Amino acid sequence: MKVLVLGGDGFCGWPASLHLSDLGHEVTIVDNLSRRRIDKELGASSLTPITSPQERLAAWEETSGETIDFVELDIAQHYDGLLDLLRTAAPDAIVHFAEQRSAPYSMKSATHKRYTIDNNTNATHNLLCALVESGIDTHLVHLGTMGVYGYGTAGMSIPEGYLDVELVGDEGERISQQILYPTNPGSVYHLTKCLDQQLFAYYAKNDALRITDLHQGIIWGTHTEQTLRDERLINRFDYDGDYGTVLNRFLMQAAVGYPLTVHGTGGQTRAFIHIRDMVRCVELALQNPPAAGERVKIFNQTTESHRVRDLAELICRISGAQIENVPNPRHESPENELSVRREAFLDLGLEPTRLSEGLLMEIEQVASRYAHRADLEKIPCTSVWTKDQQPGVPASRAPEAHDSPAEQPA
Amino acid sequence: MKVLVLGGDGFCGWPASLHLSDLGHEVTIVDNLSRRRIDKELGASSLTPITSPQERLAAWEETSGETIDFVELDIAQHYDGLLDLLRTAAPDAIVHFAEQRSAPYSMKSATHKRYTIDNNTNATHNLLCALVESGIDTHLVHLGTMGVYGYGTAGMSIPEGYLDVELVGDEGERISQQILYPTNPGSVYHLTKCLDQQLFAYYAKNDALRITDLHQGIIWGTHTEQTLRDERLINRFDYDGDYGTVLNRFLMQAAVGYPLTVHGTGGQTRAFIHIRDMVRCVELALQNPPAAGERVKIFNQTTESHRVRDLAELICRISGAQIENVPNPRHESPENELSVRREAFLDLGLEPTRLSEGLLMEIEQVASRYAHRADLEKIPCTSVWTKDQQPGVPASRAPEAHDSPAEQPA
Repeated sequence: MKVLVLGGDGFCGWPASLHLSDLGHEVTIVDNLSRRRIDKELGASSLTPITSPQERLAAWEETSGETIDFVELDIAQHYDGLLDLLRTAAPDAIVHFAEQRSAPYSMKSATHKRYTIDNNTNATHNLLCALVESGIDTHLVHLGTMGVYGYGTAGMSIPEGYLDVELVGDEGERISQQILYPTNPGSVYHLTKCLDQQLFAYYAKNDALRITDLHQGIIWGTHTEQTLRDERLINRFDYDGDYGTVLNRFLMQAAVGYPLTVHGTGGQTRAFIHIRDMVRCVELALQNPPAAGERVKIFNQTTESHRVRDLAELICRISGAQIENVPNPRHESPENELSVRREAFLDLGLEPTRLSEGLLMEIEQVASRYAHRADLEKIPCTSVWTKDQQPGVPASRAPEAHDSPAEQPA
Repeated sequence: MKVLVLGGDGFCGWPASLHLSDLGHEVTIVDNLSRRRIDKELGASSLTPITSPQERLAAWEETSGETIDFVELDIAQHYDGLLDLLRTAAPDAIVHFAEQRSAPYSMKSATHKRYTIDNNTNATHNLLCALVESGIDTHLVHLGTMGVYGYGTAGMSIPEGYLDVELVGDEGERISQQILYPTNPGSVYHLTKCLDQQLFAYYAKNDALRITDLHQGIIWGTHTEQTLRDERLINRFDYDGDYGTVLNRFLMQAAVGYPLTVHGTGGQTRAFIHIRDMVRCVELALQNPPAAGERVKIFNQTTESHRVRDLAELICRISGAQIENVPNPRHESPENELSVRREAFLDLGLEPTRLSEGLLMEIEQVASRYAHRADLEKIPCTSVWTKDQQPGVPASRAPEAHDSPAEQPA
């Protein structure tokens, strides 16, 4: 099938593009390269030495014999270009990763909040409008987040999108309904995925667009079967305080001898998925589209849930690293439970990569191998959710702990 | 109290500004005059002869002795100007009407859909960001719509914002929760008010902003006590197919001898409120702000519900007008029930203006008086919700019914 991968140069988009190309699909990557520009803005870069889009694509052709096309386009800004592309390419499916995807980045300042809302909302809405205007029959698969749910309801596993509820009618009668699971986003970034949900529900209803929304857990891991084939195909590995995800950050911190930065008590329970399973889930979603006129199909794209401090302790046991509790820059409950329904992808044949299988490989093949490229200054999460929050800087690494003149006796 | 009225030159904003000024509040209108520009785009204009912002404000000062300041600013486009204004003015309250508010306009084309999403989402989000960044302690009152609810649940009156539900836990236990009422918007315009709800919920939670959201029914009427004092203070009266609201359109159609254009069967039940009650509700909302840290306060701002064909029949009885059923350009159920909880404003002292009191006055003082200004070509609703829908053009007035050459025998 012909597939456009929007945001196909990013951390999820790149391995998903290679996986789909490897399966024989005709893949076109559409990307504005914003993630590379944001690296420059933050003075950060991937731990792994990613190559340019052109070099990656040439390496893929050399390695696999398959061609992936590349279109540089900002879908949030250039509607006409997007519409032309849809009309010309007439893809069977579109995988939409083209959004700003860091919660800490979305909270850095008013400018970053505004960019995230404006970019993500207009990217998604332009795409929906262009699908309607072009009239092409395309299945849209969007990467959402488990974060739209907040932290769920004690005693009830979070369902896959839709929630059965009972209401009490005006005459006291009980009325059964199924509703979109009520959202409770934890950052402006997560908020944008809640707005996306509303956009999708509307366009599926009014225009019978066929849409799948993947509520993904936190990704860990770097390599997929395809990115391992040639170093020029390597995927991003972010460890900085904005774009690094918690488990990959711990692995990198262990590899470079930095204390594992546990925010607050580490009592936050989060949902996780390995990057290899993500690409397989995208494949399964593409194979199982909703019908036109059907409501949005929603999957929980996650394979395990863990408490952050348990993960930190696990990595300490494997690697001998130390934990350091740092202030939690997020405005959230210090401890939460999270139980998630995951049947849909398992029923379609997903075989999850367990933490126990992948962790050591990740430390050896990625974190330790590229440890020399690390900039330790970029590790702390300096974004704060409100002015009352503190950045996630380890006391042992804070400038004033060592040599702040103000702290020295005269 | 010092109040900014965003969108204070519009159909709701203008009478609300005068009402608040008349109560002794220090009012500043902030408006980008987009509604006047859209009149030009559509080749339409208010049935009533509205004066320029400057003339209106001078007339108000002459009539009342009170001054209203005016700032021309696009809050969706000029964040820095908005932030400066909030810091300088430090208002006690902000009333936010500054959004594109027509459902048919929002459906005219991809350009109009995109403008409505982009403008409304960024206007609201810029305001929330600027409130956080400025750090001022301000109560934000926003005009939402009953349309976020869709058409409710048979047998259950729509509550004021929050819905009690029972869930079934993993062990079969019953769990009681209160959730934001699930939305089901009927157009891209209505969708933006659902997005606004999510933005408000997030910023009330993360930043303890004090926010009230008014879910308003369809406005009818033109005059308030203040706009009646001098013809230069007159409010807009829209009758065109995009901006005219159903009851005012019927009144105008009756006055000019045009058939009352009932969309579909007229089986749509809608919630209504007179414009005099709207300004009073805004006053009551300002007097009763939520506390910092409290969730968003939501009112159903509506006083009556009616089926559209019943309203048309009522106006026929009063005026002798004829009804003509036209295609419904909207993608919606032909018939719906709508039952609404309305206790909150009644408990605060609202005394509703009933249809029976205001209809004849409205026909005499407004629709008939300015009937000579009407452009009958602008009456039909030409926007359609999907390509399968038909415009709401009366067969008796369609060009081909009279003189289409293609229809004439050779």
